[in-house]
Amino acid sequence: MATAGKVIKCKAAIIWEAGKTPSVEEVEVAPPRSGEIRVKIVATGICRTDDHVLKGFFPNISYPVIAGHEGAGIVESVGPGVTCVKPGDKVIPLCLPQCGECDCCLSPKTNYCLKNHFQGSFQNWMPDKTNRFTCRGKQVYHFLWTSTFSEYTVLPEASIVKISDEAPLDKVCLFGCAFPTGYGAAINTAKVEPGSTCAIFGLGGIGLSVVIGCKTAGASRIIGVDINKSKFAKAKELGATECIAPQDFKKPINEVLMEMTGLGVDYAFEAIGRIDTEATALSSCHAGHGVCVLIGEPPAGSQLSITPIQLISGRKLTGCLVGGWKLKDALPKLVSDYMNKKFNTDTLITHVLPFEKIGEGFELLQTGKSIRCVLLF
Amino acid sequence: MATAGKVIKCKAAIIWEAGKTPSVEEVEVAPPRSGEIRVKIVATGICRTDDHVLKGFFPNISYPVIAGHEGAGIVESVGPGVTCVKPGDKVIPLCLPQCGECDCCLSPKTNYCLKNHFQGSFQNWMPDKTNRFTCRGKQVYHFLWTSTFSEYTVLPEASIVKISDEAPLDKVCLFGCAFPTGYGAAINTAKVEPGSTCAIFGLGGIGLSVVIGCKTAGASRIIGVDINKSKFAKAKELGATECIAPQDFKKPINEVLMEMTGLGVDYAFEAIGRIDTEATALSSCHAGHGVCVLIGEPPAGSQLSITPIQLISGRKLTGCLVGGWKLKDALPKLVSDYMNKKFNTDTLITHVLPFEKIGEGFELLQTGKSIRCVLLF
Repeated sequence: MATAGKVIKCKAAIIWEAGKTPSVEEVEVAPPRSGEIRVKIVATGICRTDDHVLKGFFPNISYPVIAGHEGAGIVESVGPGVTCVKPGDKVIPLCLPQCGECDCCLSPKTNYCLKNHFQGSFQNWMPDKTNRFTCRGKQVYHFLWTSTFSEYTVLPEASIVKISDEAPLDKVCLFGCAFPTGYGAAINTAKVEPGSTCAIFGLGGIGLSVVIGCKTAGASRIIGVDINKSKFAKAKELGATECIAPQDFKKPINEVLMEMTGLGVDYAFEAIGRIDTEATALSSCHAGHGVCVLIGEPPAGSQLSITPIQLISGRKLTGCLVGGWKLKDALPKLVSDYMNKKFNTDTLITHVLPFEKIGEGFELLQTGKSIRCVLLF
Repeated sequence: MATAGKVIKCKAAIIWEAGKTPSVEEVEVAPPRSGEIRVKIVATGICRTDDHVLKGFFPNISYPVIAGHEGAGIVESVGPGVTCVKPGDKVIPLCLPQCGECDCCLSPKTNYCLKNHFQGSFQNWMPDKTNRFTCRGKQVYHFLWTSTFSEYTVLPEASIVKISDEAPLDKVCLFGCAFPTGYGAAINTAKVEPGSTCAIFGLGGIGLSVVIGCKTAGASRIIGVDINKSKFAKAKELGATECIAPQDFKKPINEVLMEMTGLGVDYAFEAIGRIDTEATALSSCHAGHGVCVLIGEPPAGSQLSITPIQLISGRKLTGCLVGGWKLKDALPKLVSDYMNKKFNTDTLITHVLPFEKIGEGFELLQTGKSIRCVLLF
């Protein structure tokens, strides 16, 4: 393309410091270096994790930063040595890389690529420890090697995957985070079985994707739990058989779930990121074989307190990053499944806004009014 | 037998109150009622859980009580309706019942029989809420429906299994608790795979049985961890490839294990029952797929504090009771495997004493001098 090899000026939302709302500004995006790809982002969702960046919940994030990790776009240009995509390809940036070379990528047991961003530093820069973004003469940091809150972004090869040329980017941007995270928690991590009973704590974009996963896996009871009852209709539309709000009961909700199910649920999912809900989810599980999957990430420094006998009796407590998928391998197939109508994720998108209204999008998330708000460039 | 239907006077070790050493006395053992079996105990091990009873660590135990749950014996007489065993059969009392009728017994996913003793009250009496033991005119309570620290004991059908007529009772008494607990934690709960790396925290009777399980499963590295180095020789004899003592290192032992293994162990087992060791075991596991199995039961009220991201990255934290075995189904086969020399559990027995020396047996346990001390009637 005509822009290849040149700096591109475009709009991006910059979080100048923790606690500040994102500011839409003109940024300069340098060309991709060796092993890197520059992508024109077409659509991006807003996820709770982006809100955590905005609020400063991650201690290792450097500011100013361009957040965003649930996007879809088109390759604008590639740096030297890049073979996995070419200009014009439709792609999804990967919030969890798949380098394909590390011990974890070579193991069938985990998607925890050792180039992940969750250890120590959040790796706010590109792999060569420099940035591709500048704004008003200042270096701006990357986030998760995705930074989809910029019209153009630069990613390393480990963090990108080509998807079908026919994929609608304004819809499949959700495959960058929310959908595979919740769906995979049910399918890969919990391995929900036909006829089983599931409880999902938190009915946001991820929790509802868990509902889709439980439904696809053939669960016979899918119980949604949320204090926000406005989420219940959508949860039921997607497969929840019952929805309950803790504030409607005098006893703790885990006791309510015990009474509803007799011996506890087979599978419980925590899709909020609160340690009190995590403990409740574990207590809601069948003592002998219940599986509790932690999906939401609590603020750094949080400690979960559990009674060991809850596990010694046979419960399992686990978690997953992005639903346990090795994303490069999984996303093309998941997008294709979506296009073949195996599941309908469009209903998760409750709001669509032009990118400039990103502040409004965050407000919708913070006030619980949106499931997913998609921003279009 | 001539004693059938009559009260039997015999010796038993009574813990009159929490904190007191067991006192060997003459007790009266009533005949079995409907659905019950009276067993002449031939040999019994002493387990840490018995020591917890002695020390008063379980809040729901009633005293005076006859502890002991790792025994083997011969059926003396059976009550009306009993069909699973007959007088003269060699049997092992089950510290976790298998009633065969409850939802858990009917599920292939758990051995957590709902007649278990770990919920609410410890069920210090027989199923009909009366006792079969008296001493000096006082009712004496049962423990786990086993009470193997009595020459004769009475059990319900759910808590007994017939084993081979050729089984050496002074050896296979360990199949009442220690051996299946540790062996099953590796085989059933963790499902250790060939070539994997394992760490076992605590090299007592259960920890060494985990070593046997890991070895049988084909683990290539089996790392024993204990502050008591006198256990190391036996651990290596049974299959440990390395043994380490935390006090020999300046850094925390989980960091030592990370350095020894690169990315952490595939499977970690806590066979002590301390929350600090439980947290260490979890931290020693591979972040992306490590499995931490809790076996030892910490004192009532203990709370384990963990960092949720340790699980969200892909670790699994679980536990098991008696190694996850449905004991009625499993023990006859395990005893047969032992007799066919699939594994050698004899080496776990470091001391053999006449029953009267039970106090000495507890001292050997408390001072870390014994692995298993077997008492013979």
